[in-house]
Amino acid sequence: MRVLGVDPGLTRCGVGVVEGVAGRPLTMLGVGVVRTPADAELGHRLVAIEQGIEQWMDEHKPECVAVERVFSQHNVRTVMGTAQASAIATLCAARRGIPVALHTPSEVKAAVTGSGRADKAQVGAMVTRLLRLDAPPKPADAADALALAICHIWRAPAQNRLQQAVALHASKGRTP
Amino acid sequence: MRVLGVDPGLTRCGVGVVEGVAGRPLTMLGVGVVRTPADAELGHRLVAIEQGIEQWMDEHKPECVAVERVFSQHNVRTVMGTAQASAIATLCAARRGIPVALHTPSEVKAAVTGSGRADKAQVGAMVTRLLRLDAPPKPADAADALALAICHIWRAPAQNRLQQAVALHASKGRTP
Repeated sequence: MRVLGVDPGLTRCGVGVVEGVAGRPLTMLGVGVVRTPADAELGHRLVAIEQGIEQWMDEHKPECVAVERVFSQHNVRTVMGTAQASAIATLCAARRGIPVALHTPSEVKAAVTGSGRADKAQVGAMVTRLLRLDAPPKPADAADALALAICHIWRAPAQNRLQQAVALHASKGRTP
Repeated sequence: MRVLGVDPGLTRCGVGVVEGVAGRPLTMLGVGVVRTPADAELGHRLVAIEQGIEQWMDEHKPECVAVERVFSQHNVRTVMGTAQASAIATLCAARRGIPVALHTPSEVKAAVTGSGRADKAQVGAMVTRLLRLDAPPKPADAADALALAICHIWRAPAQNRLQQAVALHASKGRTP
């Protein structure tokens, strides 16, 4: 499975591509950041993010896109920008028929470090180890995007089994 | 000036096109709602909103798009959806090089009713009167989109004068 992780943001949108299956060593195919100038107009920033995400999808042809689920506990201004950047990433994937999965920050931290309350340094260290990199990817948004992709690869089998069980239960319910 | 007003939302995205200049009677060229099913996946909903907004722009060729500025006082779930739908409308306009203006709900209410705390019925009644319609546009999202477009037509001259003054001041500052 090849997953594009996206840590959405208007100023820095982290992107990372990881390939692999749960239980096997994972491979990083690429990592980077789509940046837009803070003083540019919102419309121009969103167009730049769309173009950046499209380029990453063109180059890496992911089978799934994992995006950080936006929460409200942050500062309101930041949340708006995050929600808008996440909308663009979700739109780009959906236009290509690529499924989009959302994971919360604590799911991602728990997946890669074992603790939902791990700090940025811990996440960076585990991403470096799990992908056998020489140094933690910089900036943190890039490392977070890789962590999202890893989280998705590891959680997907469980999520699929759950969906299959729900579907089976529903179909049994319909044919008494 | 021809303005497309957009009252952003995932379930109902109000759209309305108004033509005119400040101080003259205004003309409504179209009004409607882009709807997406609440049980559809987020990605599919965003693609449907993109297609809907594109159709309105293709048909009416607005010179400006006025979008409601998203605020935080609402329920968090609603704000996320509003921010995401507003990102799509802003993206569609920016891709075509059409300027996007944001107006707060109270600016819009104050522009069309004289009070920033007017209720939906009052906004609907004034939109009906100002555009010489037979009945208030339904649903309220459609009326709000028209109110946004009217607000923009009336406020734009003042905003332009302000921008010109700022630009003049800045250019004087640079050439002492």
